[in-house]
Amino acid sequence: MSGGLNLSKATTRVDAEKLTGFASKALEKLGVPEDDAIITARMLVACDLRGVESHGVAHLRMFYARRIRRGIINLNPKPQIFSQAASTAVMDGDNGLGFVVGYHAMMEAMRRAQETGAGFVAVRNSTHFGAAAYYAMMALERDMIGIAMTNNVPIVVAPGSSKPALSTNPLAVAVPAGKKPPFVLDMATSAVSGGKIEIALRTGSSIPEGWVIDGEGKPVTDPTKRVWGEGGLLPLGGTPAMGSYKGFGLALVVDILCGVLSGSTASILAETPAEALGNYSDHFFGAIRIDSFLPVDKFKKSMDDTVEALEALPTLPGVKKVTVPGGYEAEIVKDRETNGIPLDPKVVEDLKQLAEELGIEYYL
Amino acid sequence: MSGGLNLSKATTRVDAEKLTGFASKALEKLGVPEDDAIITARMLVACDLRGVESHGVAHLRMFYARRIRRGIINLNPKPQIFSQAASTAVMDGDNGLGFVVGYHAMMEAMRRAQETGAGFVAVRNSTHFGAAAYYAMMALERDMIGIAMTNNVPIVVAPGSSKPALSTNPLAVAVPAGKKPPFVLDMATSAVSGGKIEIALRTGSSIPEGWVIDGEGKPVTDPTKRVWGEGGLLPLGGTPAMGSYKGFGLALVVDILCGVLSGSTASILAETPAEALGNYSDHFFGAIRIDSFLPVDKFKKSMDDTVEALEALPTLPGVKKVTVPGGYEAEIVKDRETNGIPLDPKVVEDLKQLAEELGIEYYL
Repeated sequence: MSGGLNLSKATTRVDAEKLTGFASKALEKLGVPEDDAIITARMLVACDLRGVESHGVAHLRMFYARRIRRGIINLNPKPQIFSQAASTAVMDGDNGLGFVVGYHAMMEAMRRAQETGAGFVAVRNSTHFGAAAYYAMMALERDMIGIAMTNNVPIVVAPGSSKPALSTNPLAVAVPAGKKPPFVLDMATSAVSGGKIEIALRTGSSIPEGWVIDGEGKPVTDPTKRVWGEGGLLPLGGTPAMGSYKGFGLALVVDILCGVLSGSTASILAETPAEALGNYSDHFFGAIRIDSFLPVDKFKKSMDDTVEALEALPTLPGVKKVTVPGGYEAEIVKDRETNGIPLDPKVVEDLKQLAEELGIEYYL
Repeated sequence: MSGGLNLSKATTRVDAEKLTGFASKALEKLGVPEDDAIITARMLVACDLRGVESHGVAHLRMFYARRIRRGIINLNPKPQIFSQAASTAVMDGDNGLGFVVGYHAMMEAMRRAQETGAGFVAVRNSTHFGAAAYYAMMALERDMIGIAMTNNVPIVVAPGSSKPALSTNPLAVAVPAGKKPPFVLDMATSAVSGGKIEIALRTGSSIPEGWVIDGEGKPVTDPTKRVWGEGGLLPLGGTPAMGSYKGFGLALVVDILCGVLSGSTASILAETPAEALGNYSDHFFGAIRIDSFLPVDKFKKSMDDTVEALEALPTLPGVKKVTVPGGYEAEIVKDRETNGIPLDPKVVEDLKQLAEELGIEYYL
């Protein structure tokens, strides 16, 4: 999971529907068409509901609104689809808001999976699309396995180098289960996501060796000492002895499927001038129809059995239970749907400021 | 890459074709039909050619021949294919030799990709299929992206537990390039493959902390002290702080696609009595036709550009060059195709003994 804030202070609890309405209204005021604003707001709040605050409304003002105001996102894109075969397509996102481009591309992948059992859409000329998990999870209610990945500007080093060469290139896979929560893996292919470093910066904490190196390849443990463009995040595995070439390899798979296969480029070759704020992103979406392999009920029962067997594993001292990806987030969703989404005071301040800037009411 | 022997001693160099002929002959003598013996021998020797000796002829006698002699592999299987959709199929391997079952399943995935752009085959009731890379690489000459993965008996622990719950669940992805060697990633989703531990045992070396824990969760650095069934290999990432839940999650993706989607089970639920020697394996194969996304020439040029940019990265002291997965192996293949495959004296002894046992000539 791509990081969550440590909620250290007393926080306001906000109703998810109300928060979606507010975010949507703000996006509309920024010039996003209503339908697209709703799609985007839903995705942001879905992250907050799942406890992935690093990809939620906390990013609305300083990340997305900032880019929209700079005019570097096309708010009225005409995404084009090119297809040569029944199961596959390429989409040109026309530099639209990544959420909207991604939503339509994932829908297209699922339509194709409905026909042939499997559908894939590679997307070029898009922008930051938020959390990969959301798109993968769109497949769940259709009894499909969902896949989503994205590239972005390079901040991760290759093993043996200290120059940023890859983005954190996250990948997400969502798989429906029966009684148990769906399996949802959403992981940066680097040792940590950028979000975890943001959290350390915000809370003034040190970071463990193995996350970040400096330009000389030495570990950075004080995140404030990190110099932008010199050194970077390490690939999953951290060191060669611990398998960093695997994290590197997975990152390249993501870059190949998103950047190369879409007709864009891998992130190492992306031309992103500073004024574009790293406003570059390609995606890859996939959907696999479960009933094209076996009856859905049988599959879901087998998923439940697997998750239950994993959760029943004996644990080491201090560990309550083995957690299957998606299980922890499902518990958070249950709480937040009932009791509201806790918003950090800093985020509340930020949203209030956004409301003021846009001349809309802050009613959360 | 799933480990390679450290060739510490003077070794015999053997011609790849001759070695394939010998391995094939031995397999035939063991009762494998001629066509299937050739398929299997080619895959074993392909590993030796690529420097992945841990999956080559070194395993012929003690691993595969042993299983065949125990009668736990069906040498005349009737694999069945079930398909509900154009892009997907399930294969029941009828407990056949994993190499043969896997070969036919990957062919089936590619046939479907030829039709629809993408093809996937989940395989149940198979046995150990060697190195995943081989199947993924079958896609290269067809200008497809190849995907292969497999499960097996559990030897890897979940984060927070010390009971083996997952196999090393390797996954391989092969992608064609133009002038540059193909991208070939073949990785266990554990911190290391079983092969690396075998090597340490063979050479009497210690292993670093982060590869294996004992039943109490303590690091095992002397591989001879490892007690079978107590503790196990750690998932890629090693510790939770370094992202072991990602390695765990990837291993589960492999288990879901191979075990659950094929109608078998995830490895944690596999029933494998001791006398079966862990003779349990499900697979998942995929093929994606590049020209269903963009012209093959454009794709290959973009791959070349990416690999060249990565290889041109500045390196840290002591590192000659950043290596892209598949590049190092391609250099080994070049040498070995010309100069022959170096065989460790122990492997030569083993093959001689196999020849004697089977009453065939040892002519390498």
